[in-house]
Amino acid sequence: MTTSFRGLVVALMLTLLPAWALAEDGHELWLRYRPLAGQAKAQAGVSAIVLAAPASSTTQAAIAELQRGVAGMTGREPPLTPRIKPGVLVLAARAQAPSGLHLAWDELGREGYALRRLKLQGQDVTVIAANGDIGLLYGSFAWLRAAQTGADLIRLDQSSAPKVGLRLLNHWDNLDGHVERGYSGASLWDWWKLPDILDARYVDYARANASLGINGAVLNNVNAKADSLTAPYLAKAAALAGVFRPYGIKVYLSARFSAPVELGGLKTSDPLDPAVRAWWKAKADEIYKVIPDFGGFLVKANSEGQPGPQDYGRNHADGANMLAEALNPHGGVVMWRAFVYAADASDRAKQAYAEFQPLDGKFAANVIVQVKNGAIDFQPREPFHPLFGAMPKTPLALELQITKEYLGFSTHLVHLGPLFEEVLRADTGHGGTVARVVDGSLEKHKLTAVAGVANIGQDRNWSGSQFDQANWYAFGRLAWDPDLASAAVARDWVAQTFTTRPAARDAIVQLMLASREAVVDYMTPLGLHHLMDTGHHYGPGPWVNNLERADWNPTYFHRAGRDGIGFDRSPGGSNAVAQYAPSVARRFADPRTTPPELLLWFHHLPWDYAMPSGRTLWAELIARYDRGVATVDDMGRRWAALKTDVDPERHAEVTAYLAVQAREARWWRDACVAFFQSVSGLPLPAGTRPPEKDLAAYKALRFGFAPGR
Amino acid sequence: MTTSFRGLVVALMLTLLPAWALAEDGHELWLRYRPLAGQAKAQAGVSAIVLAAPASSTTQAAIAELQRGVAGMTGREPPLTPRIKPGVLVLAARAQAPSGLHLAWDELGREGYALRRLKLQGQDVTVIAANGDIGLLYGSFAWLRAAQTGADLIRLDQSSAPKVGLRLLNHWDNLDGHVERGYSGASLWDWWKLPDILDARYVDYARANASLGINGAVLNNVNAKADSLTAPYLAKAAALAGVFRPYGIKVYLSARFSAPVELGGLKTSDPLDPAVRAWWKAKADEIYKVIPDFGGFLVKANSEGQPGPQDYGRNHADGANMLAEALNPHGGVVMWRAFVYAADASDRAKQAYAEFQPLDGKFAANVIVQVKNGAIDFQPREPFHPLFGAMPKTPLALELQITKEYLGFSTHLVHLGPLFEEVLRADTGHGGTVARVVDGSLEKHKLTAVAGVANIGQDRNWSGSQFDQANWYAFGRLAWDPDLASAAVARDWVAQTFTTRPAARDAIVQLMLASREAVVDYMTPLGLHHLMDTGHHYGPGPWVNNLERADWNPTYFHRAGRDGIGFDRSPGGSNAVAQYAPSVARRFADPRTTPPELLLWFHHLPWDYAMPSGRTLWAELIARYDRGVATVDDMGRRWAALKTDVDPERHAEVTAYLAVQAREARWWRDACVAFFQSVSGLPLPAGTRPPEKDLAAYKALRFGFAPGR
Repeated sequence: MTTSFRGLVVALMLTLLPAWALAEDGHELWLRYRPLAGQAKAQAGVSAIVLAAPASSTTQAAIAELQRGVAGMTGREPPLTPRIKPGVLVLAARAQAPSGLHLAWDELGREGYALRRLKLQGQDVTVIAANGDIGLLYGSFAWLRAAQTGADLIRLDQSSAPKVGLRLLNHWDNLDGHVERGYSGASLWDWWKLPDILDARYVDYARANASLGINGAVLNNVNAKADSLTAPYLAKAAALAGVFRPYGIKVYLSARFSAPVELGGLKTSDPLDPAVRAWWKAKADEIYKVIPDFGGFLVKANSEGQPGPQDYGRNHADGANMLAEALNPHGGVVMWRAFVYAADASDRAKQAYAEFQPLDGKFAANVIVQVKNGAIDFQPREPFHPLFGAMPKTPLALELQITKEYLGFSTHLVHLGPLFEEVLRADTGHGGTVARVVDGSLEKHKLTAVAGVANIGQDRNWSGSQFDQANWYAFGRLAWDPDLASAAVARDWVAQTFTTRPAARDAIVQLMLASREAVVDYMTPLGLHHLMDTGHHYGPGPWVNNLERADWNPTYFHRAGRDGIGFDRSPGGSNAVAQYAPSVARRFADPRTTPPELLLWFHHLPWDYAMPSGRTLWAELIARYDRGVATVDDMGRRWAALKTDVDPERHAEVTAYLAVQAREARWWRDACVAFFQSVSGLPLPAGTRPPEKDLAAYKALRFGFAPGR
Repeated sequence: MTTSFRGLVVALMLTLLPAWALAEDGHELWLRYRPLAGQAKAQAGVSAIVLAAPASSTTQAAIAELQRGVAGMTGREPPLTPRIKPGVLVLAARAQAPSGLHLAWDELGREGYALRRLKLQGQDVTVIAANGDIGLLYGSFAWLRAAQTGADLIRLDQSSAPKVGLRLLNHWDNLDGHVERGYSGASLWDWWKLPDILDARYVDYARANASLGINGAVLNNVNAKADSLTAPYLAKAAALAGVFRPYGIKVYLSARFSAPVELGGLKTSDPLDPAVRAWWKAKADEIYKVIPDFGGFLVKANSEGQPGPQDYGRNHADGANMLAEALNPHGGVVMWRAFVYAADASDRAKQAYAEFQPLDGKFAANVIVQVKNGAIDFQPREPFHPLFGAMPKTPLALELQITKEYLGFSTHLVHLGPLFEEVLRADTGHGGTVARVVDGSLEKHKLTAVAGVANIGQDRNWSGSQFDQANWYAFGRLAWDPDLASAAVARDWVAQTFTTRPAARDAIVQLMLASREAVVDYMTPLGLHHLMDTGHHYGPGPWVNNLERADWNPTYFHRAGRDGIGFDRSPGGSNAVAQYAPSVARRFADPRTTPPELLLWFHHLPWDYAMPSGRTLWAELIARYDRGVATVDDMGRRWAALKTDVDPERHAEVTAYLAVQAREARWWRDACVAFFQSVSGLPLPAGTRPPEKDLAAYKALRFGFAPGR
């Protein structure tokens, strides 16, 4: 059978496949390559592929992806050809590029690419050009995305290079297969069967990440076991590294600081102890023997019970620099997390800044300090972390949470693109936005990183729900280019995943964009934060005040009483605002200049405080809770209207999830309103729907087997 | 588009699909329905389907499966038609059956079916006949199996009715998603998202079970949490029951005996306490309100720390009968497990008999005592449990373990069909085989059951490896008909799963059949048992002697010393043999009449004991270990020779698993030989390969994160 007939049949097949043969279960993510029609199909046609680049496992992966994608979209799989012909697609590495391209090669850097439709040797061809093979792979995915999303491929002329060097997923995956704060099944890494058995999903994981530009994966939980540094587990990590390498993805490990004691039998893990330093050096040498391109260590130290340098009277820089010294000969990096808080802190929000800012300039060159987007812990909304811009001599990585620990797990539809965008665009007051800190441009740092806590597991749909895939996608695209608009990224994802029909596509995008403010409204409006119930972090628990540590209790954070509500972080309170640059601090210090969205984060205000809306704070709070519920209802209506635009399987699935979210948004709203009313003692504003149940009923709910704990 | 063209395209598609579009990942189990060719394809053609039966969700499921199967195998999906035409397939329930069938309807019972090709109204048709709709579904799966395996459908004339009433999977699945002794990923039941979100896999699970005749599922672990009996979890179980109901599968729950205290706030769970009895009655009423066809309770009581009636000075019958009384008005059943052993037992093998045999005749009519196949715990080989045949007045269920807790997890290829068959065919000496006890025919019991501890999880291939699917399959087929030959069942599975080409099919069957004796040989030959290392039950640990309870230690079971090896259960020893019927007891009491395969189970013998082979016991032991390793190597060679007969994806996957097994068979052999040599002090027989490493090296191995613990 000729290739073209085979291609035709493939196209027919994909159109006519009975539902059971190609289940729309979301497993293909955004790399679906469904048949195009009309002009889009004609433009996506490729007569053949020319490899004007070294044959490597990476260029092989690029060719295979192009063949798969073009076959799926057009019904015809392009063969390889040695010479330029009409309609070919040329993968051109700088050294072997055909003449006549006239590219600004230097601007593409090591990982960037250019896509261009042009005449070459008199023929109309498409060129994917890059300095090296990983750029060719990224360019191939970009070209496929352009084809999938209906871009005009005839006028194609674009180039892109990542603005951030390390674009990493952090997997909080334990060696026993459990994923901390994971809501999409067990860990993708089958540590027990590795290194012998290589699940086919490992390749698909690498493809999906490469399609976004993600170039590293920290395989194990930051709450680390030392075991991951033993020879058997290094062999397992090496096997994964071998699968990922063609896709440009480096493997990293979370390192347990006390490993020299636990594994090495030393009496101490003091970072200034020569034997400890020697142990880590030997360990690094051992790692690089089996994983020559090992990325480095991620470390959670002296935080939430993890061991660290403070156990020995040393500071974070002492600890990080010891590891950096061990990794440095091999080119490895230490990502040292700034998520720390002490049991006795007067304001937990101030802790990371207090411990880290004074260490600015003390870290080795291959250390990057990894800072969460906000100072508490991945809440629906937080102001940007005051460390951004405050440590000019230190490269800072931004840590985002893709898994929705505090935002409804994988059951609520909450698109995080707007949250990521809000953080990146926040003006630090130190001369640039968070994005300019993170991409290194503000202080001319070469070492730059964005990390996302992964939402990936063994669920067939990878992320626990169809729409949670979009959060992985948005993270990856924004890590590559923090200046992208989250709406544009969402539009690409919808076009690749659901539909390119403009009306339906845009309706889905609108629904996604509305979802983030909705979750803020029905969980923690007006700057409230950390109101969730104990342990599971799922439902509401604003009444919780019985936990061992003050700053584990929601009552610590909202401080609601008869007099008002909110955490006073103004100069008259904890003065956390002073950790920000003066211009920002001034704005946040005064409730009148603090954005309403962050009001109760920074201020404790009386219930009758007059809001810009004209409502009292009490009425505004309830209005916001109501708005959240209304938005979720509206999302349900919008989705219902899309029934003919989405395949029945995924439409029904999302419908079921939205019904859960509608019910649980009411639960959040009702429980919080009931509680705050019990504290404020105020009547509900006229016309307000009273909570469905008594406060006691909400307090009595228990969720003993919630996932992710 | 007409149906026939659509069908043609489906057939083309399935032939020509690129590898990535229809991954051979094993997800379809044995219900693959790949295109047939030649005569098999012609015979599997169905012009249309006639439903001569009530339209129910069950007959709808039968029709859907027939349409899916015929479309897949022949390329043409048969439509429904109201009247007999040439080539139709008639689903005929007794009350609506066309005349001229002349079936022995009564022999089919409630669940049986008949398949027959015949002339009806002058036309050649195929009839699937049954008394009720579930028989029609079973018959449809049987007809599809006949078509898939290349049976002569033109001369079809068969009927079948299950010999055992309750054919159940026991899921040892915890409410947090972990599966105890599970090696195929997390629990299939997403308790967190139930009852709102119904995973598409629930239907496929039901289809697969119905295709084998499995008609019940105990959803939660026998080490039960009381939570599964609370209203929220009953709603979740009810949602599953709703999915399973059309497929004839009832839902059961493991009941925690102390639930009246834990949930009901009672001061006791004493089964003779009126308040406790009232609590269980009310709980049963509550359950049947949401699950009207609830199957009943499975109970592990007073075993391995579980609460039970002995906590209150009562016996197993007291406990079981209390629950039976609560379930009886609703038709529910209590399955009371006999797996018990006390900390102070002189011989753990004797414990279950000692506790249960005296209670024969004391159990209520809707209680069945569930007995493991052997008296220890699912070892590679055990003699049949002495309770079989010893409690004539009590229905006994056979409990088999499908998940391979002690047989290499899902990493080793061990086909369990021969193990199941060996147990079922064992002559109890009480007038019949274990099969005759279990199917109730020996003592004319109506309540009959076979239970299998499931090996099912969220892995894409369901069971952790391709070949572990065959153990689920073999269990189901043998539960329906305990007299089936395991070789014939394996042949069906291979034909449905891999290939119908006779040479390749039979080669795979041979490999499977050899695998069980191989694992016995390389782990625990000659009646040895319980030699595994602590906790994980994976690798060898014959040296382990430091566990809290004597009968948790391998040294307790093998009793190897300078003088010899084996557990003396003869009249001169623990006299466990006396628990068997006299004829069997006599045979097992004497080493000369004890089968060599069970020799060291019943006897402690000197190392120079003369074996029938002419070797000393010491030499025979090593020869068996070597034979096990050689068989695994041979399995690898056989599989390698099948490369062109199996799709590349599954061939490569199984090859990788067999390489692990070959390495680990050596590990088992070497560690055990090294240990037993250290005890016997004897030189290795001439020509014997010495263990690869020192005994100390094997003792030092640790597996902290083994799955299933």
